[in-house]
Amino acid sequence: MTVPGSSPMQDYALTVDRFLDHGAKWHGQAQVITAGQDEDCAIGYAALRERANHLSGALLSLGLHAGERVATLAWNTQHHVEVWYAAMGAGLVCHTLNPRLTVAQLAAMISEADDRVLAVGAGLGMLAEALVAACPCLEQVILLDGERPLAAGGRLQPVELEAFLSKRGAPVPWGRIDERSLAGLCFTSGTTGAPKGVAYTHRSNYLHTLRLLQADAMALTAADTILVAVPMFHANAWGLPFAAPAVGAGLVLPGRVTDGRSLMELINRRGVTVAVGVPTVWIGLLDHLDAVGGDTPGLERIIIGGSSCPEALLARMESRLGVTVQTSWGMTELSPLGTISPRSTAPGAARGAGRPPIGVDLLLADADGAALPDQRNAVGHLKVRGQSAVDHYFGGTDSALDADGWFDTGDLAIIDDDGNLTLAGRSKDLIKSGGEWINPVEIEDIVGALPAVGLVAVIGRPDPKWGERPLMVVEPANGGDIDEGALKASLKGRVADWWIPDRIVQVEAMPLAATGKINKTQLRATYGGA
Amino acid sequence: MTVPGSSPMQDYALTVDRFLDHGAKWHGQAQVITAGQDEDCAIGYAALRERANHLSGALLSLGLHAGERVATLAWNTQHHVEVWYAAMGAGLVCHTLNPRLTVAQLAAMISEADDRVLAVGAGLGMLAEALVAACPCLEQVILLDGERPLAAGGRLQPVELEAFLSKRGAPVPWGRIDERSLAGLCFTSGTTGAPKGVAYTHRSNYLHTLRLLQADAMALTAADTILVAVPMFHANAWGLPFAAPAVGAGLVLPGRVTDGRSLMELINRRGVTVAVGVPTVWIGLLDHLDAVGGDTPGLERIIIGGSSCPEALLARMESRLGVTVQTSWGMTELSPLGTISPRSTAPGAARGAGRPPIGVDLLLADADGAALPDQRNAVGHLKVRGQSAVDHYFGGTDSALDADGWFDTGDLAIIDDDGNLTLAGRSKDLIKSGGEWINPVEIEDIVGALPAVGLVAVIGRPDPKWGERPLMVVEPANGGDIDEGALKASLKGRVADWWIPDRIVQVEAMPLAATGKINKTQLRATYGGA
Repeated sequence: MTVPGSSPMQDYALTVDRFLDHGAKWHGQAQVITAGQDEDCAIGYAALRERANHLSGALLSLGLHAGERVATLAWNTQHHVEVWYAAMGAGLVCHTLNPRLTVAQLAAMISEADDRVLAVGAGLGMLAEALVAACPCLEQVILLDGERPLAAGGRLQPVELEAFLSKRGAPVPWGRIDERSLAGLCFTSGTTGAPKGVAYTHRSNYLHTLRLLQADAMALTAADTILVAVPMFHANAWGLPFAAPAVGAGLVLPGRVTDGRSLMELINRRGVTVAVGVPTVWIGLLDHLDAVGGDTPGLERIIIGGSSCPEALLARMESRLGVTVQTSWGMTELSPLGTISPRSTAPGAARGAGRPPIGVDLLLADADGAALPDQRNAVGHLKVRGQSAVDHYFGGTDSALDADGWFDTGDLAIIDDDGNLTLAGRSKDLIKSGGEWINPVEIEDIVGALPAVGLVAVIGRPDPKWGERPLMVVEPANGGDIDEGALKASLKGRVADWWIPDRIVQVEAMPLAATGKINKTQLRATYGGA
Repeated sequence: MTVPGSSPMQDYALTVDRFLDHGAKWHGQAQVITAGQDEDCAIGYAALRERANHLSGALLSLGLHAGERVATLAWNTQHHVEVWYAAMGAGLVCHTLNPRLTVAQLAAMISEADDRVLAVGAGLGMLAEALVAACPCLEQVILLDGERPLAAGGRLQPVELEAFLSKRGAPVPWGRIDERSLAGLCFTSGTTGAPKGVAYTHRSNYLHTLRLLQADAMALTAADTILVAVPMFHANAWGLPFAAPAVGAGLVLPGRVTDGRSLMELINRRGVTVAVGVPTVWIGLLDHLDAVGGDTPGLERIIIGGSSCPEALLARMESRLGVTVQTSWGMTELSPLGTISPRSTAPGAARGAGRPPIGVDLLLADADGAALPDQRNAVGHLKVRGQSAVDHYFGGTDSALDADGWFDTGDLAIIDDDGNLTLAGRSKDLIKSGGEWINPVEIEDIVGALPAVGLVAVIGRPDPKWGERPLMVVEPANGGDIDEGALKASLKGRVADWWIPDRIVQVEAMPLAATGKINKTQLRATYGGA
């Protein structure tokens, strides 16, 4: 007997443990591969599900309760995937940490999240010890990937994963969780201001996964083997550890090592069909292939994102590797996928960062927040609504949305007639001069194309007459010196005269943020004074 | 400011109006084509959304309130799609009726659903008038597809869609609906017992659509043009009017006409890449192509379902049409997709009815309801759990599920090592003889393969000694006469001796249900006496 008025369709909660359950039941022999120095480690989804489920029991035996956080400081490995599902399946929250951040940054995140357990991957034991010392909330350290306890010891005695499993592992029922409860936590890199925690729910991750699996999105199938070269601490590795078992695709995890030679060998050794990661990684692969005359004949597609990709690199990837490159745009706040170009994109065709799949709404607005009257072919401030988009940050109560429920990405973008999105800089980087806006990206694109220029950034500098004026910072290519007149001449006639920077500063090395992007915050601190 | 403890991700309701909104915004020029006798009717998603939204306003102007039912008695046409989205977008429930049922059957459904509006397609005006006379709940009839009011008149004065739109049409906000509210209603054909209403929610339809769109399911893309040869009154036309705008695929609607010649011409005229419908329809297409030496060069895939497809027909479709055939299994109660074979299936490969996509759980049980210890390679009673599976029927309060939350499909099935499902008859058709089960499907498969046999059905008949004994009803091929000894001999050694029917009845014409399947209920009534 059902309650009158209740839903006539089953109340089937959208929780992420179902992905691994599905993989275990329907594709139990499909493999998760972790690259090793000597040999790879392989496990099927059925066995991995068994281990992760027992690990849930071990975590719960520590006295953890639903909603409490388990932190991971680890590379892409089988053990990391096991901790992830063990935590989420049991109703705990998996908080992925970026090992490339500083102790102070990580300690702040751990303390804000009030993490009770820290799982630590290969080579990160020293860093973990520093974090244990700095974070009283941590109660247990679990060593993954064969990492050994340090001789020195510290406040806590770490336990190795296999010992932890054999001593405390026990099967527990998964998935008795409200779909709106938290599953994961990931802090934004925070090039401006303090890092902010994005807390993913089971529902948002589940729906994001279904977004990825669409034939016009990542189009993963049981016939695919997927190389995940994007870290699991980077917005859930773009959701691939969810998507792969949900369709029974093979999952290839490179661990820490993503140099060109290692990736080439891994791709060929494991029959990778789809490779996913930021453009930098694929430059390394291309350079290595060119250097040794190598090839990756089984590779069919590369999916990139994380930063926009120059057309020349796209063309090089497609011609050298014989693959289709799918571009994408996303953010930690979007779980992360916002737009993606389809696999059917013809080689050489313009694609920008692709179109949004169903479940992502985009809006271009003016500087005052009002929707542009024409949403095509005009640069606007990019706002998002969607089923996997942030409402408010972790621990906060202030909504991250505007009055109409839109999340302002902070990006500037343009959409073409086919609906393809192209990013056009960050709104905070806009320079207001004489009451009008200058978009530094347009200047940077022109100057950056000059052979003599390595990196270039344009920032605003207070000006008593105009409010702000643009200043250009240039890192010459190959350590050379650049003629300032030539730089300005390159802009003449291509941007308005008043957009041309008054001052040009040449630097030996451009400051970069942890993400590899130019650190404009630091540039402003150094050169942005009046 | 958000409520503490509320979801940190956006509360983005899963409602089906979003599909057409997405199509209108991102694929506004992608077309919905309705086949016409003289010329086709074409409209883009943007214009169709505008019309459907105004039609919502017209419906609401009749005094309809959220949750009330709008019935449709119509073929697959643009107008039918417009009524469908107009109703669902405004929070009304679209109740699709099968025009091939009798007045009495339809009147019972309309009365049970308490439909207030009836939208009527081409050639169905007479039937509608009879229903108006029989159903006092009906208050308004809307004529679609150019259908003209009858001269006779009736209790209600019908209004033509265009006049209704121009007189009462008005834009209304869509999608301010709880995702668990009702969107659609479809009665099962009810070969046994009274028809039962399956009430789809916005959420169940939304999640079903995402299931279809997966690359290993229907894999629809913006590059596709989809022929929907399965009626919209048949389990939402398998969800295609939702899925097509959600990815911007073209939608080709054949109206009432699905003969071989019409389909060939339509496929070629509109550049159809994916065609969807029951096997019978494609036999008509094949026969016509063979008769005229025709071809459908642009067609890439055919997706079948609704009944299991003989291997020989699969092979004929793949070789004659040069397409990939994707098999599937579904039920009205599952929205309808349960399993599907992937498009990557090699020609000639065994596929059964494919595997379940994520969101569908299957379980094989014994006759007492207990899970089979091994879920592979043994026939069992097929049960389902899932995000688009029925919990209870329309108007009922009794759960349709067992104590563990499983819906018993009433089907028998077997699952192979690769996870492919093959249907093996209906559990209610099982015959219990001497305390053991006989599965009539196994007998029918053997006898049905004999060239002399047109159609064959095996039913149980009460027997004082054995409880039940099998009786075989045969319709000879080409009106011939069949030697009973040969029929029995064909079974010898292929089934247990005690499975061989004691009695054989030859009939000129097998009784068929509205679905085209053999009507075993009628056979039992006629021949099933002791």
